[in-house]
Amino acid sequence: MSQPYDRVFNFSAGPCTLPVEVLEEAKEDLLNYKGAGMSVMEMSHRSKPFEKILAEAEADLRTLLGIPESYKVLFLQGGASLQFSMAPWNFLGAGQTADYVVTGAWGEKAVEAAAMVGSVKVAYDGKAGNYNQAPDFSSIPLSDNPAYVHFTSNETIQGVEFLSDPAIAPPLVCDMSSDILSRPVDISKYAMIYAGAQKNMGPAGATVVILSDDFMAKSPAKMHPILDYKLHAKNSSMYNTPPCWTIYMCGLVYKYLLKKGGVAASQRRNTEKANTIYQAIDSSDGFYKGHAVCGSRSIMNVTFTLPSEELTSAFVKEAEGRKLDGLKGHRSVGGIRASIYNAFPLEGCQVLAEFMGQFAAKNG
Amino acid sequence: MSQPYDRVFNFSAGPCTLPVEVLEEAKEDLLNYKGAGMSVMEMSHRSKPFEKILAEAEADLRTLLGIPESYKVLFLQGGASLQFSMAPWNFLGAGQTADYVVTGAWGEKAVEAAAMVGSVKVAYDGKAGNYNQAPDFSSIPLSDNPAYVHFTSNETIQGVEFLSDPAIAPPLVCDMSSDILSRPVDISKYAMIYAGAQKNMGPAGATVVILSDDFMAKSPAKMHPILDYKLHAKNSSMYNTPPCWTIYMCGLVYKYLLKKGGVAASQRRNTEKANTIYQAIDSSDGFYKGHAVCGSRSIMNVTFTLPSEELTSAFVKEAEGRKLDGLKGHRSVGGIRASIYNAFPLEGCQVLAEFMGQFAAKNG
Repeated sequence: MSQPYDRVFNFSAGPCTLPVEVLEEAKEDLLNYKGAGMSVMEMSHRSKPFEKILAEAEADLRTLLGIPESYKVLFLQGGASLQFSMAPWNFLGAGQTADYVVTGAWGEKAVEAAAMVGSVKVAYDGKAGNYNQAPDFSSIPLSDNPAYVHFTSNETIQGVEFLSDPAIAPPLVCDMSSDILSRPVDISKYAMIYAGAQKNMGPAGATVVILSDDFMAKSPAKMHPILDYKLHAKNSSMYNTPPCWTIYMCGLVYKYLLKKGGVAASQRRNTEKANTIYQAIDSSDGFYKGHAVCGSRSIMNVTFTLPSEELTSAFVKEAEGRKLDGLKGHRSVGGIRASIYNAFPLEGCQVLAEFMGQFAAKNG
Repeated sequence: MSQPYDRVFNFSAGPCTLPVEVLEEAKEDLLNYKGAGMSVMEMSHRSKPFEKILAEAEADLRTLLGIPESYKVLFLQGGASLQFSMAPWNFLGAGQTADYVVTGAWGEKAVEAAAMVGSVKVAYDGKAGNYNQAPDFSSIPLSDNPAYVHFTSNETIQGVEFLSDPAIAPPLVCDMSSDILSRPVDISKYAMIYAGAQKNMGPAGATVVILSDDFMAKSPAKMHPILDYKLHAKNSSMYNTPPCWTIYMCGLVYKYLLKKGGVAASQRRNTEKANTIYQAIDSSDGFYKGHAVCGSRSIMNVTFTLPSEELTSAFVKEAEGRKLDGLKGHRSVGGIRASIYNAFPLEGCQVLAEFMGQFAAKNG
């Protein structure tokens, strides 16, 4: 089965597949963006065309996620990894404790960075079960009056996802890097959401931060400029030169998603895509074993193991021959990881599921 | 005079003009990079093709600048603005003082960030002269044994540049954002150089840090992970997902510069370009007044004023009609700023100089 431009099905965990028509538009305008006489890569961030690109990207993201006016939307640099430090720097004061819910590798990294800033309580840690589930939030014992509660809505390595928005009283901070825009979200339940661009939004190099005005007001008056959410907000993400091209690409993806029916339609497509692969796991008579428990299965990263390392290697190799690329799982879980973010096509999941059936029949 | 793809002469201070043939190559490979079946924007940073892109970018930059093996080369995010904080965080310990040489607006910002970390001495401040010169380094009174001495080799707003490498005993840290690769540099005179990509290297979104092993060893053992040069170096710029597309574009620019004869040839081209405009200033019988004093005139940003604001506005407007774009100066200096980084063509400087002569003759 041949894809346009002889492209492969790219199951990479991120950076990852972008919509073909978005790439086509970027290519079309690459040397001269809509008559501006230059590429978006060459454009002053203070120019009218780029100011419009940034404003439209923000407006479209607000529409997609229903972001209230009382929230700021920022496009920053440094990835989620910088947010691991920036969030506690801004919001974990002396004498306070922040609670962390850890369901995988990225949550662990967030704890590591926050613990260098202040007092951290790990309110939930799924490590004993090798991070195979997203717990019921209401069952997690939280601190009295924590500065905030942090969690990772989707863990890419383990393929474990919270499929709905937790409802808790303390300010909720969420690393939504790998499932933002994959489903509708009730923003009002969150004090802050951050997300690296390189899964569901665009190329690597930008981080979206969605931040309630009330929460932002708790940040100290005097902060290091580049690490100060208030300063970035005051300057509409232009305190320093923003990653213009990445923001432009995110903006094209937002317009594409709006045209495709918004995040409710994303959720339907993503659920169908994930179920196609999960069904191949569940109907394999135990040849494939899913890593995440049912109810915590990610619709973004489907993780499963095979009976042996030899079979896993053979699976990855044969899959590559069918242009199914990037399926090798992370070493901490082993097996296979099929990352199927928003822009990944259903067809690729069907080809994988069919191959899984054939491979199990031959080797089971 | 018509340019390919109906492009304008883009005098923007950054982001700014990139070489047309670099943009053409990026366009050609946009949907399928050299048979990988995907765009560089969609590629795992752990994939073989991207590892090769990163390794070649580093190797080519080392060749261009003659960077010794005893220096690390890092590709980070956050712009020079993050380096304003990262440098003192890593190298300005308790009980130490760092000296700052301030020749313009970016130096001021570097001081502001460093002063939040530790003790800073402004060893030179050109503010009284509205930052119109780069002083003789040997005349600057430095602290006894400073942690480092920081300066900005080219100030984009004022158009003031150090045209050779200072030779001092203490560790020298340089913000080379706007003139890196514009001329040969003796790296061994520096402990650390940092530079945002968006002037002479590529699109906005990456920062190159060149750091001597000896200097890096002075960084504290325990640092915030994302702000720790040692950790980034240990992980070869892949501690977290790097800005892959921006690095790719920088890599294409490095190959282009090598093909064009390296940085010695850059310097010859840039000097000729700048002189073309400075001559138009100096032969205008005082109609145009250069901001920087002779000997400190930048070969990257040529700044000058006209007799009145009305004439300045008329100049900018008429220039735009001739496809000379982005000439309006920064409000702190006023007048005109012609930013003519590496990729800006000589032809554009000639067109501007010709226009300057005509405009002065008509309005002088």
